[in-house]
Formats: sequence, C-alpha cells, structure tokens
Amino acid sequence: MDRLIETIEAKDNPSVVGLDPTQDLVPSQVFSETIELDEDDLATLVRQLEGFNNPQDERLLDLINAADSPEAKVKAASCAMDEMVPGAGIVDGFYAFNRAIIDAVKDVVPAVKPQIAMYEAYGSVGFDIYRLTCQYAQEQGLYVLGDIKRGDIGSTAAAYAKHLTGINSRGEDFNGQPWHEDGITVNPYFGTDGITPFTDAAKACDKDVFALVRTSNPSSKEVQELVLADGDKLYERVADLVEDWGADCVGKYGYSRLGAVVGATHPQQGKALRERMPHTFFLVPGYGAQGGTAYDAAQMFDGNKRGAIVNSSRGIIGAWKKSGEYKSDMIAEEALDLVGRSARAAAIAMRDDLKSALK
Amino acid sequence: MDRLIETIEAKDNPSVVGLDPTQDLVPSQVFSETIELDEDDLATLVRQLEGFNNPQDERLLDLINAADSPEAKVKAASCAMDEMVPGAGIVDGFYAFNRAIIDAVKDVVPAVKPQIAMYEAYGSVGFDIYRLTCQYAQEQGLYVLGDIKRGDIGSTAAAYAKHLTGINSRGEDFNGQPWHEDGITVNPYFGTDGITPFTDAAKACDKDVFALVRTSNPSSKEVQELVLADGDKLYERVADLVEDWGADCVGKYGYSRLGAVVGATHPQQGKALRERMPHTFFLVPGYGAQGGTAYDAAQMFDGNKRGAIVNSSRGIIGAWKKSGEYKSDMIAEEALDLVGRSARAAAIAMRDDLKSALK
Repeated sequence: MDRLIETIEAKDNPSVVGLDPTQDLVPSQVFSETIELDEDDLATLVRQLEGFNNPQDERLLDLINAADSPEAKVKAASCAMDEMVPGAGIVDGFYAFNRAIIDAVKDVVPAVKPQIAMYEAYGSVGFDIYRLTCQYAQEQGLYVLGDIKRGDIGSTAAAYAKHLTGINSRGEDFNGQPWHEDGITVNPYFGTDGITPFTDAAKACDKDVFALVRTSNPSSKEVQELVLADGDKLYERVADLVEDWGADCVGKYGYSRLGAVVGATHPQQGKALRERMPHTFFLVPGYGAQGGTAYDAAQMFDGNKRGAIVNSSRGIIGAWKKSGEYKSDMIAEEALDLVGRSARAAAIAMRDDLKSALK
Repeated sequence: MDRLIETIEAKDNPSVVGLDPTQDLVPSQVFSETIELDEDDLATLVRQLEGFNNPQDERLLDLINAADSPEAKVKAASCAMDEMVPGAGIVDGFYAFNRAIIDAVKDVVPAVKPQIAMYEAYGSVGFDIYRLTCQYAQEQGLYVLGDIKRGDIGSTAAAYAKHLTGINSRGEDFNGQPWHEDGITVNPYFGTDGITPFTDAAKACDKDVFALVRTSNPSSKEVQELVLADGDKLYERVADLVEDWGADCVGKYGYSRLGAVVGATHPQQGKALRERMPHTFFLVPGYGAQGGTAYDAAQMFDGNKRGAIVNSSRGIIGAWKKSGEYKSDMIAEEALDLVGRSARAAAIAMRDDLKSALK
C-alpha cells in the first residue's frame, strides 16, 4: 500500500475518482456513429479479415460468404459486427469521456477507480476500453484501482489474479501490466484459499488488493450485519480475517497490501473498524451520491490523517449535468470540455471538503 | 430453471462439464504460434490498422510511427500486439480444445459451464474466446452456464446483469445473446439489492442465476460456517435469503430461476439444504478432482431425482492425460481426437456413476 499512500500525500488529497460511465452520464454528442457498412466497406472488410487469423474473424468471413447476394452480405456483416463488437460506438465514447476526466483531475487527485462492470456490459470491446482507460490513467501518473470484485476457489482465484501479474502470448508473466491496474477489489466469501492467490500476486508485483468488508449499499446489512454466537457481527469477523490475511505484507507506513472496502454510509461502524484493523487501509465508497458525508468518511482515517481513500463517482464524472452550462447543440469537444471543467471543480471541492473534515 | 430441467431430462443426465482450460490441461501442439512479425507483415498490418477507427488500433499505429527504424517499427508492433492481445495464441488453443470437448460430449451431457476466469486471465481476446465457446456450445444444443461469480451494489449489478440481457451498438437490449449464456453464477455478499438486478434480467429473457451458498473449497468454512446468534450457520441464513429471493419466479417444475451453488464436498450440509430450500435448484461443484463422490452429490437431489446438476471440470477435460495414449509427437488433430474421446468416456462414466448413486 506504500505506493498509494505516497501518491495520496504527494497530492495532499485522500480521494479517488470512480470512472463508472453509463450512457446517461456521457453527453450524447460524444458517442461515435454505430457501424453502418456499404458494399465498398464490405470489400475492404473482407480483405482485412482475410489478412487475419483468429476464430472471430473467420466466423465473420464465413457469415459473409454464406450470404447469397451483395445486399445479404452487407446485412450479414453489419449484424455480425454488431454482435461481435456490441456497443463499440458507446464504449469509444466512454474512452473519450474518461480521458477528458483524467486530463482535468490528474493534478488534483492521486487515483482513479474504473468500475469494470460498466465496460464488461459491452463485451470484449468494453474490456479493451477498460484496459486502455487504466493505461491512460497510469501514463498520467495516477494510481489505478480496478474495481473488479472478483472471487472464487483457489485455482480459479489464481486465474483472476492475472489481473495483477498478467500474462503474455508465451504464457509468461507479463511485467504486471496486462490491465494496467495498481490494485483490485475482491470478495471474501470463499475464505483464505480464495484470497491468498490475490495477495501472493500483489506481493509479486508491488500492487494491492482490497477485500469487501462492509459495503455501502442499503441491503448489505442482510448478510454483513448478521449477529454471530459471540456477539460480533459477520462484517467484524470478516474484518478480523482481512487484518490477519494481510499480516505478512505490512509496508513501511504500517498498512498491509490487503486493504478493506468500508462504506462511508456506515460511519460509526467504520470508526470502530479503524480501531479493529490497525494495519488495514480502507477504500471508502458511498461519499456523495450514495449519501456519505466528508465527516462520515473522516471516521475511517487514523490519527495521522492516513489509512483511507474516499471514492466519488457520479458526484465527479456527472458534475457537468448540474453545471447549468450544457447545451444540446454543443459539439463533442465543447461537451467534453464542460465535462472536464465540471469534474475538476467537483474534485477540488471534494478534496477541500475532506481536508476540512479531517482538521 | 425449466429449460435446464428439460434439457437434463432429455439427456437423462444431471451433469455439466466445466470448460476451465489451463495451459497444462491442453496438449501443447494445439497452441498456435505466437505473433512474430517481419517487415512485410508490418506493411500489411499498417494498411489494416489505417482501415480501422478505434482507440486501440490508433494507439498501435502511433507506436509504430514513433519508432525511428524499420527494425524498431517491427519491434514496437510486436511488443504492442503482444500487450494488446496477450495470450492470443493460447486462447486460440483453448477454443480448439473446447470445440473438441463439446463435439465429443454434446449427445451425452445437457450443459457446459465455462469458467470465465480462465479466459479473462488473457484479457479481452480471452473474453472473445469465452463468448465464442458459449456460442458454439449453444449451437450444439447445450445449456450454457457462465461461471462468472459477479456481484456488486445495485447500480453495478445491473451492469453485470447485461451478461444475460445484453446490449447492442445502439445501447438497446440485444436479444439476450451477448455472451450466449443461459445462466450465470453470482455472489450474495451484498444482499437483496445486489441480487435483484440479476433475477430481474433472468425473468426478462428466460434465463437463470445461481447464487453462492456453500462453496466446495476447504477454506469456505471460515466464513460460510460461522455460527449465528440463533444457532444457524451463515450459509444456512444465506440459503434462506436465496430461497426467498427466488420465490416470485418459481417454474412449472417447482424450482425458481434463482438456484444455489452447493459443493459436493459437503454432502450432509447439502442434504439438509435440499430440505431447507425446496424451490431452489442446486449447481453442485466439487465432484471428482475436488473429492466429492456420486453418493455425496446424490444427497443434493429431491425425491424425483431432480433439483440438482453436478459439475466436473478437470475430471472430464483432463481425462486425456490419464488415458496413457498421449504421445508428444502427435499432430494437433490427433491430440484433439484423444482429448475428445477421453472426455466422452469420462462424461459417460460420470453419468452412469450419478445414475447408479441416484437409484
């Protein structure tokens, strides 16, 4: 966790911007045209596909060749491409949107937290845009926290842990940069053997993992607040497991590579967890749109104003909608400029809000 | 769950084959060559890239153009492609391997369960192969259970639920076939609002969801067997929640669209859960390689020999390694023929093993 802590102190700002784009958070003029092929495009496409050699391209070629008229071939190609790159026009818009946000906040915040679900919803092309977003953010000097919430039995968790250690075309370790994530979130329901592959991967490539402990959503109490025979609540026992799982990888600031997700919507529980988990760094979602305040989030910090980083997603990336400056006849560049300016102002306001709450 | 139950009865076989390929489960001659570019390839590649228009291709073009000698351009392109399609040669091998398995077992088993982590480990190209595997299995008449174990707060769970409902380039519903999954697995740690988006999606497109209750791995007891104040164990309370969450989507065979994952490695707990969850269909992992027997798995079935489907992964897809017939000088086709024959024999043996245990 040392790299994250140092990045936070360099920016003097313990907050992270969640990059969770949805269609209604992105100005419509930012989305590129969807795929529309004519017969010339088709000829070019066929030449390109013949130059490649993978199952997806061969499948598309077969579909085109099976069609019995030029019109049918164009239709087959358009439908097949729409299936093969679902939402390509949308995720291209997400990438332009994310870059505008990153460029506008990179000197204000230490980190960004892309939510992989928002990209995964669009299939493998969405996965590409997720990775490119992480890579662009890293190139701008930001710590990238991949919010992937993976978890499974040991052998499968080891495969998910490639998010950190990576792999290349020869099956070798790929220098820890396949998705350009510096840290990821994981689910603790499987116990030790579902977590060890992630912490081992983090140790191997100087990265971090954050396990869910007390999530910010309303229903979370149905499971996480179940009272155990000894009076503890489930999330408190999970907290003890997380503190224990990270005990062998505590860094120079006293925090381990295994952090915990603790929602700002539970300030008193978070304050108690801060005491209970002295070597566990907190990722604190739920500030802003979900109702958590800076004072609530401040409960998750230690006496040195360290030990936590607070996330805001919609409050930052959707700030342009509340600016009153948006006009539907703006061109994409004007809309993205407004998105960036609004996000920057919101990120600065959040930083100052947190700093005064931590005084 | 009606479609799954009818597919099981049509094949008279309550088992599912887990498609969890790893490099050591696939004969080495099946893997295609990794990317090696010469200057002619580079010229072709540049022409192809110029014909496209997406951030990833533009990024690759920029990298090539920035290099200052032909050798440097080839090196830049090779490195960039290796980063952009990590493990492409490996996952192409996985796809050939999966098709050999599917072709060999499609008349024996009703379903396959691809484990997305094994593909996701290779980035977006792995995601393509996961989807193509699901699509090929559906085309062969198999029910496809996507083992994705996703879970998050409501708004994010809704994005993950696109695995079932899908999306197209216009952001519209994509006929429920983006990943060609008929069902998916999810994690219950978030409570009701983390599950409802998945069950709503399943209802909208006649698909199914399986929530983790009692997983097959050794450490799972650390969390799942925690004793609650009223004497119940955590997994029993989660079981009650799952039975309740599925109450409004019970099908004609008495089972809801929300199933439960219950490991064959816990036969007595599974037997008790079968009583406790009368409307919940079970996905039972842990048979074979993980130690669960047919008798153990049989505890998860109801009086009509219904109510569960048993998974085996390594025991079927890795059966070729125990055949004694493999030779390192086999060509890929010979190795894949052995993989298929061995998988088919293992799938038939598992079916008969389960049927005699259910007698």
